[in-house]
Amino acid sequence: MRIDVWSDVVCPWCYIGKRRLEKALAGFEHAADVEVVWHSYELDPAAPQEPTERTVDVLARKYGGGVENAQRMMDQVEAVAAEEGLLYRLSQTMRVNTVDAHRVLHLALHEGGSDVQGQLKEALLAANFIEVRNVADHATITELATAVGLDPDRVAAVLAGNEFRDEVYADVAQAQAFGANGVPFFVIEQKYGVSGAQPVEVFANALERAWRESHPALQMVSDSDAEACGPDGCSI
Amino acid sequence: MRIDVWSDVVCPWCYIGKRRLEKALAGFEHAADVEVVWHSYELDPAAPQEPTERTVDVLARKYGGGVENAQRMMDQVEAVAAEEGLLYRLSQTMRVNTVDAHRVLHLALHEGGSDVQGQLKEALLAANFIEVRNVADHATITELATAVGLDPDRVAAVLAGNEFRDEVYADVAQAQAFGANGVPFFVIEQKYGVSGAQPVEVFANALERAWRESHPALQMVSDSDAEACGPDGCSI
Repeated sequence: MRIDVWSDVVCPWCYIGKRRLEKALAGFEHAADVEVVWHSYELDPAAPQEPTERTVDVLARKYGGGVENAQRMMDQVEAVAAEEGLLYRLSQTMRVNTVDAHRVLHLALHEGGSDVQGQLKEALLAANFIEVRNVADHATITELATAVGLDPDRVAAVLAGNEFRDEVYADVAQAQAFGANGVPFFVIEQKYGVSGAQPVEVFANALERAWRESHPALQMVSDSDAEACGPDGCSI
Repeated sequence: MRIDVWSDVVCPWCYIGKRRLEKALAGFEHAADVEVVWHSYELDPAAPQEPTERTVDVLARKYGGGVENAQRMMDQVEAVAAEEGLLYRLSQTMRVNTVDAHRVLHLALHEGGSDVQGQLKEALLAANFIEVRNVADHATITELATAVGLDPDRVAAVLAGNEFRDEVYADVAQAQAFGANGVPFFVIEQKYGVSGAQPVEVFANALERAWRESHPALQMVSDSDAEACGPDGCSI
């Protein structure tokens, strides 16, 4: 079974949603047969490559109420993250562009498969929210990508060029086609959508439902057999 | 969308079922996106390579009532076939083995894809039921296979050896796993089973149903969105 997840490396609810999905998977009987693939979603494509502004100041500007109000909003998200064991340091994060992180996540999927990609996704989220590292920085991306087993020269080549940029845009377009207007956005078996960092039970129920439907006993479309031939001969 | 069909070259209801499926496909909006793959099913694996016995005599022996009774059964099947435009000459057919025809049908799928395989399947059924040719005969199989574009040397090599024999057995095992105990047996999108030469409407309905389900609008598993981040910021 396959789960496609759209998220951004700098999206606080995405990391929380990731933990809740993982909890649901931990209690799911067929978790070993589930593949999770991460897709790009740029929340802020206009963000600069170099960090020049604190996220808290961006929020203050966007929502008004000053830095105090922005800090209060961040505290609330941090409290929810802490319930999932994630010790965010949101007030220290900077506004940065994530397209390069997404391009290397595509490289990871391409070269190492979804397991390696998942490890890099985790490392990038932890770097941004917990370690407060710059996930737009090429040296940081390279270090994290190399740590999960990617070839440093290959990573450097991707970062130096435009490789996987189309894949990032295609991912965003696909999310929009699915009707997503925010992230995290989860699609199970191309069929069931889960929007946002829903509670663990929502993921658990969706997993059970999708599994049942994708592993059906064959459903016969007619109660009665029609004329046929078998080992003992043909009808009539 | 994919349709897998199990059938035998010497199965009268299989050819009739094929025509009914084709009629349903002719009226199906998305027929261009449907791939039909033919699978092997040997109704009579013990049948000889050389034709030594008429089918009518086999039937007479199996069902009793003499050749007259067997002929009457054949007349009834011929009448149904005629409704589908198939002018069977059942009383002239002989009991022959079909494993080689099936092996070359696998070659056709392997070398030419499902279109070429479909053409060869049609040619073999027509040869057996309408033209009353020996579909166990290597020269006949080669002629029909070459006519749909297969390489005669490759066909000869397959016929001379055991190539694709395992694929034939695997097909039969798969049909059994699906619960088929006769043919034709149709499986649409690995999900819906159609057993026997059902009426055109049964195929048509199954096609519509399978299409709808394999091309769903995403079904959201929760009415309410959970916390998420979008272009305008994050929840809270």
